[in-house]
Amino acid sequence: MSRMVFVNGEYVPEEAARVSVFDRGFLFADGVYEVVSVLGGKLVDFAGHMARLRRSLGALDMEMPMAEAEFLATHRDLVARNALDEGMVYTQVTRGAADRDFLFPPEGTPLSVVSFTQAAALVDKPAARRGIRIITQPDIRWGRRDIKTVQLLAASMCKMAAKKAGKDDAWMVEDGFVTEGTSNNAYVVAGGSIITRDLSHSILHGITRAAVLRLAREARMTLEERAFTVEEAKAADEAFVTSASSFVTPVIEIDGLPVGSGAPGPVAARLREIYIADARASAV
Amino acid sequence: MSRMVFVNGEYVPEEAARVSVFDRGFLFADGVYEVVSVLGGKLVDFAGHMARLRRSLGALDMEMPMAEAEFLATHRDLVARNALDEGMVYTQVTRGAADRDFLFPPEGTPLSVVSFTQAAALVDKPAARRGIRIITQPDIRWGRRDIKTVQLLAASMCKMAAKKAGKDDAWMVEDGFVTEGTSNNAYVVAGGSIITRDLSHSILHGITRAAVLRLAREARMTLEERAFTVEEAKAADEAFVTSASSFVTPVIEIDGLPVGSGAPGPVAARLREIYIADARASAV
Repeated sequence: MSRMVFVNGEYVPEEAARVSVFDRGFLFADGVYEVVSVLGGKLVDFAGHMARLRRSLGALDMEMPMAEAEFLATHRDLVARNALDEGMVYTQVTRGAADRDFLFPPEGTPLSVVSFTQAAALVDKPAARRGIRIITQPDIRWGRRDIKTVQLLAASMCKMAAKKAGKDDAWMVEDGFVTEGTSNNAYVVAGGSIITRDLSHSILHGITRAAVLRLAREARMTLEERAFTVEEAKAADEAFVTSASSFVTPVIEIDGLPVGSGAPGPVAARLREIYIADARASAV
Repeated sequence: MSRMVFVNGEYVPEEAARVSVFDRGFLFADGVYEVVSVLGGKLVDFAGHMARLRRSLGALDMEMPMAEAEFLATHRDLVARNALDEGMVYTQVTRGAADRDFLFPPEGTPLSVVSFTQAAALVDKPAARRGIRIITQPDIRWGRRDIKTVQLLAASMCKMAAKKAGKDDAWMVEDGFVTEGTSNNAYVVAGGSIITRDLSHSILHGITRAAVLRLAREARMTLEERAFTVEEAKAADEAFVTSASSFVTPVIEIDGLPVGSGAPGPVAARLREIYIADARASAV
């Protein structure tokens, strides 16, 4: 059965879901996106994703193209129309269609809004049980990774490099320090502390990262928000990643070396459990 | 009158020129492009642009989606159908449409090919006569600028910064050295030499750059291919940019300071003249 996709105010079958070739998302990667997880047919941390969408758009001199309530209605419509119980709602906003020019189009050019669902098992996931194996790759992305743009080619290339190496994902490294995973934030556990990179232009400001850190604080875990090196990661007791669709997922191998015992560790398992419980309880 | 646009093997009116919202060009900026100039209805340096297209695709593990002869036929069809005498043919190739995944889609997924024309006066251009004023901006683009991808958001933001400052364009600067303009290669003339940055992953390997350097050598001008600083540029006798659509265009002001006399200089003027003569003579 074909999905119904939201394109600029209309719900259309995915085969008919199209945008102009002059859309600046297509010609200039001039757009931003969000991925909201769905658990039991409800939206996880919707307000957080909307706040970041607004921030990303603002950083690029764009405004929210619809009220947050309209985005919520659209998300719920898509979940209902596609009978989605578990998975994601992807939303992309671009600067709209205009004849090709490096200058932004005239004010008033309508932004494009596209949303679609992806069904996926998020809670009961083999990767979460057995952990993932990663490689490290040079981080060659641009300087504003805090803006969630569709300039995802470098991350996609890193993920393919991992696949070619027979692994699950890659951590990107700049000046010896881990920035983040290809589509997730990166953490290590060492000396009883959970260590993850502090927020800056160098990494995405993960919505799931914020939730996990809040829950870890509430559980009286020790946190350090600072950059860590690849060597620290390899010597850590545990490592894990967080994202809207992977929640908390243990990393059991880095560049061929086991992390800790080489099996998923207790901190990641605990955080995954309390994150999922909180997400289910607060989903809208 | 609406342009006819080439989309995946068909010629359609521009209003109907659309791609899937699942096209990886739209979701991941996973695509490359070329811009071929048209003078007197003929294509300038077509073979050079095709060679670079093949190189860009190869760097991203994609192959040419059509034979070069088919691209030539398509370019000529578009020029004829749109009665284009002077302007550009833009061509974009992406990894095609597939459900959203950071991993590349399965082998055999058809690449997308889109081409369209833009009418523009290229030879008789005010900017070429009076010169352009530029500002400098930090170069925050990714690490593989030699691949001509559609990840153009940073360049577009720099061009907008120039517009907001009341200027024409921006030169991007990394570690004190000029990389290039927002959509052109950058040059200064000092001590009797034409200086332009050497080829690397840091800049686009301009097709017009290659032609202009060849013509300069043939005209016995002195060339230096090396990085130059912003300070050198501000103290230079002349400055200019080259690109497929701007040919050779003088830069008369950098960050509010006049370059040389503050008027277009003789080296840029001479190079523009011989480049246009060569382009007209060799266009196909």
